[in-house]
Amino acid sequence: MKLLKRKGKIIKLNPAQILVIGFGSLILIGTCLFMLPIATHEHGRGLSFIDALFEATSAVCVTGLAVVDTGSTFTTFGQIVLLCLIQMGGWGFMTTGIFMFIILGKRIGLKERLLLQDSLNVFTLSGVVHLVKRIILITLIVEVIGAIILAVRWSSEMPLKKAIYYGVFHSISAFNNAGFGLEADSLSKWVGDPTVNIVITLLFIIGGIGFTVILDLYRKKSFRKLSLHSKVALLMTLILNIVGTLIILVSEFDNPSTIGHFGLGDKLWASYFQGVVPRTAGFNTLDISQMTLSSQVFMMALMFIGASSGSTGGGIKVTTYAIIIFAFWTVLTNRNDVNIFRRRISWQYVNKALSIVVAAILFIFIIFFLLTYTEDAEMSKILFETISAFGTVGLSAGFTTDLTPIGRILITIMMFIGRLGPLTMAFALLKTQKESKVRFAEEKILIG
Amino acid sequence: MKLLKRKGKIIKLNPAQILVIGFGSLILIGTCLFMLPIATHEHGRGLSFIDALFEATSAVCVTGLAVVDTGSTFTTFGQIVLLCLIQMGGWGFMTTGIFMFIILGKRIGLKERLLLQDSLNVFTLSGVVHLVKRIILITLIVEVIGAIILAVRWSSEMPLKKAIYYGVFHSISAFNNAGFGLEADSLSKWVGDPTVNIVITLLFIIGGIGFTVILDLYRKKSFRKLSLHSKVALLMTLILNIVGTLIILVSEFDNPSTIGHFGLGDKLWASYFQGVVPRTAGFNTLDISQMTLSSQVFMMALMFIGASSGSTGGGIKVTTYAIIIFAFWTVLTNRNDVNIFRRRISWQYVNKALSIVVAAILFIFIIFFLLTYTEDAEMSKILFETISAFGTVGLSAGFTTDLTPIGRILITIMMFIGRLGPLTMAFALLKTQKESKVRFAEEKILIG
Ligand SMILES: [K+]
Ligand SMILES: [K+]
Repeated sequence: MKLLKRKGKIIKLNPAQILVIGFGSLILIGTCLFMLPIATHEHGRGLSFIDALFEATSAVCVTGLAVVDTGSTFTTFGQIVLLCLIQMGGWGFMTTGIFMFIILGKRIGLKERLLLQDSLNVFTLSGVVHLVKRIILITLIVEVIGAIILAVRWSSEMPLKKAIYYGVFHSISAFNNAGFGLEADSLSKWVGDPTVNIVITLLFIIGGIGFTVILDLYRKKSFRKLSLHSKVALLMTLILNIVGTLIILVSEFDNPSTIGHFGLGDKLWASYFQGVVPRTAGFNTLDISQMTLSSQVFMMALMFIGASSGSTGGGIKVTTYAIIIFAFWTVLTNRNDVNIFRRRISWQYVNKALSIVVAAILFIFIIFFLLTYTEDAEMSKILFETISAFGTVGLSAGFTTDLTPIGRILITIMMFIGRLGPLTMAFALLKTQKESKVRFAEEKILIG
Repeated sequence: MKLLKRKGKIIKLNPAQILVIGFGSLILIGTCLFMLPIATHEHGRGLSFIDALFEATSAVCVTGLAVVDTGSTFTTFGQIVLLCLIQMGGWGFMTTGIFMFIILGKRIGLKERLLLQDSLNVFTLSGVVHLVKRIILITLIVEVIGAIILAVRWSSEMPLKKAIYYGVFHSISAFNNAGFGLEADSLSKWVGDPTVNIVITLLFIIGGIGFTVILDLYRKKSFRKLSLHSKVALLMTLILNIVGTLIILVSEFDNPSTIGHFGLGDKLWASYFQGVVPRTAGFNTLDISQMTLSSQVFMMALMFIGASSGSTGGGIKVTTYAIIIFAFWTVLTNRNDVNIFRRRISWQYVNKALSIVVAAILFIFIIFFLLTYTEDAEMSKILFETISAFGTVGLSAGFTTDLTPIGRILITIMMFIGRLGPLTMAFALLKTQKESKVRFAEEKILIG
């Protein structure tokens, strides 16, 4: 794609690089807006550059990690900027771009469609624009329903105007898996409240399952007829949510700092919420720094796995995880094909899945390792923060505000890599790809 | 292989299962010996079952983690049992078995050769027995030379008899990458001593490079003519040792609890030793619990990677690591073949390498996660101990003696899995493998 001319030479950007530039531009706009004095309550000055960059990246990457308290620091203007960044980030840069095209009445050419295909991770070009319209429609319907129920629930304990604003803010934040809240302790006030628990988790589970799955469900209305992708995404989401809930319940059952003194009902609600939220919503109803190491470690694993492809969630994605587990089983049982639900997965996909995991571990290790130099804290806190940023989760063991300036920049980079996906990021860093001309002789090597 | 008859039905064991039973038997013999009153100085009673099992597993798996102080707890009898277990563990169960066959003058049949091939990870059956004889010869030559130099060095500061014993013990322990020492603080006394540093590191580097590479070097005498396996193993060993040394030097340079107050010479010796030792020798000249988190994290990465295939070392192996890095590069650059040193690696090997890593991470995660329930310590201490056990390294942040009884059993299991290799262990756990009959239709799935 010809974008820039320099010294008469055309610089070609691959789709990954365009995505990086797109997300980057959106983040920079957000950064500038957060630096404006009208964005914050502090007299006459906005956020510092590093903090504004952190907050803008966290919003655009729908992460939810925050170096300032969202509710008390930002003015209504600042909060609305935050919501816009979250919604644009949630739709993804390209969806947003096409949305603009549609609004401005422009025709959408093949190039834009190709880019969009890459960005949304769909297989065919046909119907991509149609898909974008549906995405926007679904988003609005779900967010409005969520906002209304939450506003009604909260109207009983706060003024109606505030309740409506809270409903809208949390609905948008939850559906986009952003995890930004208006209270300093996230949703801890409503730890045992059924309405808040159900509405918020449903919002981020629907957002995290991915638009393709929602549309597939809408069209087929039967599990057996669904595409392989939808089946795997739904089943993995269900399994991981059940396992997550049980592990948190067992690990925290007697912990006096969290749910130890709760009744069984509140214990279950809190475990359900904290078991489901690491993939990748980022709200919390319990203080994570007070949870057991077991819970924290398991949440790290869930944050690493993340949500579904083509959704508002991050991580390596449940389908990637499923493919790896099945491929591993295939090798163990000496089979030739990776089969899931009586369908064969090409080795090409398996290799891509494994590359994603390798890239993810590589990026997480580098950022985490650098943070061990800049931060003075326990391993669990630093690693939790790093994986949370990678998975665009936004949960924190209370460490975000303690980050040093360099630490803030490193976490900002991690959020950016996490949102784009480790493989996209790796592709973006590479120059034009060479074709291999020579095929070398095969030779064996000892491993393991 | 017909081994047992039960209810008239022949139970077939795969080579992996035979290895498990073999190593297991050796460990049980060691456990019984350590429980004898004559094994320890404590009046009239040997070690408890759990501690004896731990020490025997640690010796057979050439790990070096210890719940008791080797020098002060064991009698000379106990220490010699330990040395025998280390040497038998180092050669590997099958090598030891064939050694017995040779000594007893028995003929070696096809079945034994097949088993041996599997155990030693060599490609051809021919010359396997010859290889075993060479392995034993190389071991003895290297260990005798090491023992003599160490004994001469130590004769200046201790009685000759003790110096000789120290030389023999540390030479065997180092060459087999066992990491057991006779002093409570390992080799910290000689942190800046050139002779001890050079001899010990050379011993475990030679032991950790693998017999196939040593024989290849001996035959070819030129890097270019070496097999691909030898080239990769040598180059990776060199790179990782240099990087390890530099990282430790940088991370500890100003740390007053380790090398901060040392002169530059001692700083370099200590960094070299601690940078090289995590793969997978297990001695230490610095107190690991006093090292920075950065050093500890980097050592965990090195312990995970480990040494070469077919060596006395553990971990996922440097060649596995190299294949994964190159395969990752291949996917990133859109190439079809994984090429190393102008040779093509079959995707079959790449898949095996990736399966090893997946199995390793899976096993480490399970054991580590269970330890978070049984142990009350920081994440870094528990994870360091787990990875050290997996890599059969034997380094510890001073946590081994604090382990609860269940924790000791979990680490014992981890050492066993680590020595056999995660994939062998996974194979051993499986029943007879079914052939896949139906080939399903291919379907795409969204990942990443
Ligand atoms: K989030
Ligand atoms: K060792």
